[in-house]
Amino acid sequence: MRIPLNRDSHIPMYRQIHQFLREQITSGALQPSTRLPASRDLASSLGVNRITVTSAYAELEAEGLVAGRPGSGTYVASLVPVAPGPPARRTAGTDWPLWQQEMLNRAWLPSARELDRLLESTATRPDVISFASGLGASELFPVDDIRKRLHTILRRDGAGALDYGHRRGHPPLRASIAQILTAQGIPTHPEHVLITSGSQQGLSLVARLLLRPGDAVLVESPTYCGAIDLFRSLDVRLVGIPVDDQGMQAEQVEDALRRTMPRLIYTIPTFHNPTGTCMSGQRRRLLVELAGRYNVPILEDDFVGDLRYDGRAQPALKALDPGGRVIYVSTFSKMLMPGLRVGFLVAEGPVYERLVDLKRVSDLATSNLMQWALEACICVGCYQAHLRRACRVYRRRRDAMVKALARFLPSGAQWVTPQGGLFLWLRLPNGLAADALYPLAAEEGVTFVPGSLFFPGGQSQPYVRLNFARHAPEVIEEGVHRLSRAIMRAMTSQGRGVTPVPRRAVVV
Amino acid sequence: MRIPLNRDSHIPMYRQIHQFLREQITSGALQPSTRLPASRDLASSLGVNRITVTSAYAELEAEGLVAGRPGSGTYVASLVPVAPGPPARRTAGTDWPLWQQEMLNRAWLPSARELDRLLESTATRPDVISFASGLGASELFPVDDIRKRLHTILRRDGAGALDYGHRRGHPPLRASIAQILTAQGIPTHPEHVLITSGSQQGLSLVARLLLRPGDAVLVESPTYCGAIDLFRSLDVRLVGIPVDDQGMQAEQVEDALRRTMPRLIYTIPTFHNPTGTCMSGQRRRLLVELAGRYNVPILEDDFVGDLRYDGRAQPALKALDPGGRVIYVSTFSKMLMPGLRVGFLVAEGPVYERLVDLKRVSDLATSNLMQWALEACICVGCYQAHLRRACRVYRRRRDAMVKALARFLPSGAQWVTPQGGLFLWLRLPNGLAADALYPLAAEEGVTFVPGSLFFPGGQSQPYVRLNFARHAPEVIEEGVHRLSRAIMRAMTSQGRGVTPVPRRAVVV
Repeated sequence: MRIPLNRDSHIPMYRQIHQFLREQITSGALQPSTRLPASRDLASSLGVNRITVTSAYAELEAEGLVAGRPGSGTYVASLVPVAPGPPARRTAGTDWPLWQQEMLNRAWLPSARELDRLLESTATRPDVISFASGLGASELFPVDDIRKRLHTILRRDGAGALDYGHRRGHPPLRASIAQILTAQGIPTHPEHVLITSGSQQGLSLVARLLLRPGDAVLVESPTYCGAIDLFRSLDVRLVGIPVDDQGMQAEQVEDALRRTMPRLIYTIPTFHNPTGTCMSGQRRRLLVELAGRYNVPILEDDFVGDLRYDGRAQPALKALDPGGRVIYVSTFSKMLMPGLRVGFLVAEGPVYERLVDLKRVSDLATSNLMQWALEACICVGCYQAHLRRACRVYRRRRDAMVKALARFLPSGAQWVTPQGGLFLWLRLPNGLAADALYPLAAEEGVTFVPGSLFFPGGQSQPYVRLNFARHAPEVIEEGVHRLSRAIMRAMTSQGRGVTPVPRRAVVV
Repeated sequence: MRIPLNRDSHIPMYRQIHQFLREQITSGALQPSTRLPASRDLASSLGVNRITVTSAYAELEAEGLVAGRPGSGTYVASLVPVAPGPPARRTAGTDWPLWQQEMLNRAWLPSARELDRLLESTATRPDVISFASGLGASELFPVDDIRKRLHTILRRDGAGALDYGHRRGHPPLRASIAQILTAQGIPTHPEHVLITSGSQQGLSLVARLLLRPGDAVLVESPTYCGAIDLFRSLDVRLVGIPVDDQGMQAEQVEDALRRTMPRLIYTIPTFHNPTGTCMSGQRRRLLVELAGRYNVPILEDDFVGDLRYDGRAQPALKALDPGGRVIYVSTFSKMLMPGLRVGFLVAEGPVYERLVDLKRVSDLATSNLMQWALEACICVGCYQAHLRRACRVYRRRRDAMVKALARFLPSGAQWVTPQGGLFLWLRLPNGLAADALYPLAAEEGVTFVPGSLFFPGGQSQPYVRLNFARHAPEVIEEGVHRLSRAIMRAMTSQGRGVTPVPRRAVVV
């Protein structure tokens, strides 16, 4: 225990110790039944006489704040009236230093905070069917496999697996990733792979390296809300390119490049988040060609590219890259399990080493143990088997959702059946605003992510993102049924004069 | 396999597939004995006729690049002459896009890269005794405890432990941290704790939130090289405050505050890295008072504050903080094991929520599984037991190093015996430059970190940082003996006209 003592003060030492502990106990910082240090130990660590400490403890005992138990020590009393929350001096808003008050002027992360707010409102209701998740089905996570790998690794390699490891990432894991990507048509050398703490860190490293405040970034509109928040945190301007059922409208990119001179193009070409669409091969080629001609890097987010249920696979932008134009970011979080926090990026050229450096100053390294476990999973084919199984299961769930939507939703609702990934993008009938629908849906027992969170501008939108991968077909059917009831109710309110969102020339 | 096909090209499809696979095989991207996809599957995924794929495979087989095994499939031949390294088109330096070439103008992370260079030169020599590590003793890591916790958690909670978890960090872990800190005299509420991926991420989040290019930052000179690299990556100016055996010379801080108007004070007050010194209580109070008066936040790095072997504990700066002036960063990496990658920060006021936001866009969350395992360790007292054991063992090792230094080193060598932590800061005799000593020491079979890496200016310095915690006393004795031989040799060379570093008014 390090108690701040002022040896020059006129307040006696025992009193300083007493007052400090008293504040700790009454504020709740020292919990009831906590054992105080032995007086001998505390005296020694504070460099005071033991009598000083016992005097302070005696004062506390006299006040009923602590109680001595013979032969066992001194404990915080169990019936102390504890002030709720943190100590008062730390919550008085006006007392903050000026630099702290300046923080209040920075408003960030509307998407993430809005999502938290929405989901927290239904988090304690087990009856709610959530289509809001960004993840795959947790019951499919190969938990037992991971458990066995961790067990074996810690048995066999002990502390070796608990070091910082290689700064680019565990070399055998990088080799395995390079092999998987190469087999998918993205020729990759292990020396161009950097292991990251999830794909979000990959996006963050690239954005921080390449962007300065005020820079423009081309993004799909809508796009992944975690990327919107990331870009906002860097004070860059987002230039949205519309999406249709063939992905980002690459034909509009050249005009935007000329007009806004962006420093980065961020895209999710395969099973786009949130719309689930795939960019056509023609557009992919055009985008890579434009990136070369206009000297703008492409950040390709391929977060679920492997989860294809039908249709023809298009090459990754990275596979079309004649050299150093595309930085490719992916992850095992969505497909294997998010708790691993292991993603990766692929980049060549001078930018690669700069990303390695930036990773190092950001968090030194990604958990070596998790990298070893993941590598072991890939080696024995567990990852591949999991992927095949996930594709089978998710295809059935997607089909169940599409069938239920067709059966229950009123006419005017529109969607494009996604060929893979996790998400279906639903356009609500009658230009219903998803934000207005949300509370009604929650009442009916179903949740989703309102479309507004995915648009760089953040306006209310007649779209919702539905995750079809998390529930069994019968649960999906019930969830869509509830959603349809909420939509009917919203349309009725709308008919009674609740203002709908104005219809706009929106895509998909 | 996603092969980039151009359906508008005059090159036939089978030829495009053939050429793509050929490049993959000859570049080594597709390794010998890799199984190619079944022709039916590849045709289906590419949306081409099966004949197209079998024709491409036949071409490859004719060239000896693949071989069909009856009933088993088509495999890459095992004797393909593989070009070394990545495909040639990706290494031609002059072909990089312009934005990539601009990256070459950014020179970062001299410390980390220099350290890698030095350590790699001896990494393959098991005979070398390394005093260069930044970590505690790996044989003390409670590997078995962690293994059992992970096993239990994954058995009991399954996928629940593999979700993203709470965005501030696992609530029970935050509660435990708050309790530990409170017992150490730092009154902490769980709602002011943010779990980070090691303390490096804590430093990075604070620096990125508070600093803009060109800002000044007060740091100890010398200071932790990972912080120097971090600040360099943000293009801020470092203002070094000298360190003596009472820590940062806080008396010089007010002048520096007036002169340079810094946006942050970064300090390691307890068992400072690299010097091992502790800031006096008086200086701690002065620093916190100045931070308040000059409206500058303090970033307190308490990376090994718990590892005290003797002497009197001083309060953390955070314990002296009247509210919102100090952001406190710490970790379990050094004490428990680095591979966990779990650290934390404590902050109150508006800055806290901004740090939570920045953490989220940086990597979404720290591994939930690791947080659960750590929390389980703390709950059952494993962490506390480990800490007591580490203190006992490290104290003996520190004593062994001090004894060996006194016994073997020539007069003129100077050091202050550290009261805790991992490091001893040795001033070399005769102003010997540590960088010049390094190769001689490596020849003798001992390594250290040269002092120059810890000075913001980076000049050669007559200091070395020795980690005393990693080896048994007899190994330490042998290592110091080797070091003394290297020093003697360096002094002899110096006598023969090798220029020594000019003596300067340096500290400690």
